[in-house]
Amino acid sequence: MADGFADRLLAAIDEKKTPLIVGLDPVYDQLPPAVREHRDFNDPSSAAACADAFVTFCNKIIKIVAPLVPAVKINSAFFERYFWFGQEAYAEVVAEARANGLIVIGDVKRSDIGHSAEQYAAATLREPRFDDVPGDATPDAVTVNPYLGADGVQPFVEVAQHENRGVFVLVRTSNPSAAVIQDRVDASGEPLYLQMAKLVDEWGAGVRGASGFSSIGAVVGATHPEQMKALRKAFPKMLFLVPGFGTQGGGGTEIAAAFDGAGRGAVINASRSILQAWKKSPHEDWQKSIEAATREAIATIRAALPP
Amino acid sequence: MADGFADRLLAAIDEKKTPLIVGLDPVYDQLPPAVREHRDFNDPSSAAACADAFVTFCNKIIKIVAPLVPAVKINSAFFERYFWFGQEAYAEVVAEARANGLIVIGDVKRSDIGHSAEQYAAATLREPRFDDVPGDATPDAVTVNPYLGADGVQPFVEVAQHENRGVFVLVRTSNPSAAVIQDRVDASGEPLYLQMAKLVDEWGAGVRGASGFSSIGAVVGATHPEQMKALRKAFPKMLFLVPGFGTQGGGGTEIAAAFDGAGRGAVINASRSILQAWKKSPHEDWQKSIEAATREAIATIRAALPP
Repeated sequence: MADGFADRLLAAIDEKKTPLIVGLDPVYDQLPPAVREHRDFNDPSSAAACADAFVTFCNKIIKIVAPLVPAVKINSAFFERYFWFGQEAYAEVVAEARANGLIVIGDVKRSDIGHSAEQYAAATLREPRFDDVPGDATPDAVTVNPYLGADGVQPFVEVAQHENRGVFVLVRTSNPSAAVIQDRVDASGEPLYLQMAKLVDEWGAGVRGASGFSSIGAVVGATHPEQMKALRKAFPKMLFLVPGFGTQGGGGTEIAAAFDGAGRGAVINASRSILQAWKKSPHEDWQKSIEAATREAIATIRAALPP
Repeated sequence: MADGFADRLLAAIDEKKTPLIVGLDPVYDQLPPAVREHRDFNDPSSAAACADAFVTFCNKIIKIVAPLVPAVKINSAFFERYFWFGQEAYAEVVAEARANGLIVIGDVKRSDIGHSAEQYAAATLREPRFDDVPGDATPDAVTVNPYLGADGVQPFVEVAQHENRGVFVLVRTSNPSAAVIQDRVDASGEPLYLQMAKLVDEWGAGVRGASGFSSIGAVVGATHPEQMKALRKAFPKMLFLVPGFGTQGGGGTEIAAAFDGAGRGAVINASRSILQAWKKSPHEDWQKSIEAATREAIATIRAALPP
């Protein structure tokens, strides 16, 4: 039987010797001019042209980062704003990343209940079962929002179980206003994010791999080292997906707390600091800037972790 | 200046004399045989054929219910499972419902932060700005998930403000497991759903219409009359979108608590009990069964409300 998601991700981290993952959040106005001004894509009034530009741009990024990092995180929102053209582009980028040996996390943050959640699990995580949709058009794992409780997450967990895929549940996000809701303490003094992590731990009990880590992990922002420490202490064997590194303010010291004593158990996402690195040296080959920024992020993370 | 979303919805309820809205959650296996077995659609292995079947089915429902109800709620999940074919079908159904004079609520339950939330607001709520996407392909209002706090909701509120559209924030959902998270009380004894409703009230302060109701409303399930009463009491001028009526167990008496003293302020969604009404009399014209079920739901709600 094939390995579960958690074990595959940890093996890829070991192989690439870095927990850095690259976030593909393309913004049309922020594409390198060499891509944006290409005659095929130079038309912001065409959703199809913008979506095509994303495929070209992301596929080049994938070629650059595939030898360097274990995984990419593709944020569906940035594609969906180009409607069905964008959705098809998202699927093409997912397939290209998988074809290049990368593990793919679909950052879709979906939420619904019961039967509707089943539809989203089939739409975003399950292997497509249609003649006219490629079989590798869905990612290895997705992010989900837990506000609706177990009913909303269970359909994703079932797909993860049956297809060796993974789920990252939003637990403590990296944005400023998250605290108002996620840090809210109950009568016993327990913050909501900690209760949520307990639920994640329960939901993931059936998909624990040989590594001891479950394929149901948590999204925990790099901008809150205190909450990160509390979560890692409470759940030494929970996979963390850590956004907020780089542009959002989380630095090397903030992310160290995400790892266990052996320096394992988390992936650190960097998006804008890599995708828009070409802006710092606009006269250079943009692809070289992206590679340099990826290597720089790897070095920053390495320096922050125990040797 | 055009009326805001809240006032338009309330006027449509007055005009149609019912707060019932019809939920379009099509399931391929549950389509009437006359649609599913049509030679153009009789191929579950083709996502394009399934999506086309949904457009045909939903457009017929729209013609039936447009004279009877103020609005439809279209659940994006059921379309998305057919990938980009489904996304395009969703947009076609949204446009058809608007063309038939219905107010359209896109049940997308999106959530993300800051810049990513802006992308979702542009993808799901804002009027499309592309030559190759019809201008009426987005709904009048969408549902959003508030677990990420203000950062995740604000971009939707801004679109609502600039384009006279609306937002329904998930506050107390109708599913069994919602209680674990949404009813959780803090040290002061206040449940999370009530705190969330306070935030919704704040977020909606800038888009209050002449009616006194804001275009930023709340999703409150019909299956929890106690929470419903508490919310209506605390927020007499908040729009409620009420799912869970019919198949999920909420009956006429459960939904009465959603309304204010004048019998206003809420829309009640029925999906499966209408869409799958043809099953009860499989030998009749399926469209007649749908119309009869819609009229029955209207009568049930009318009987439950003060005269």
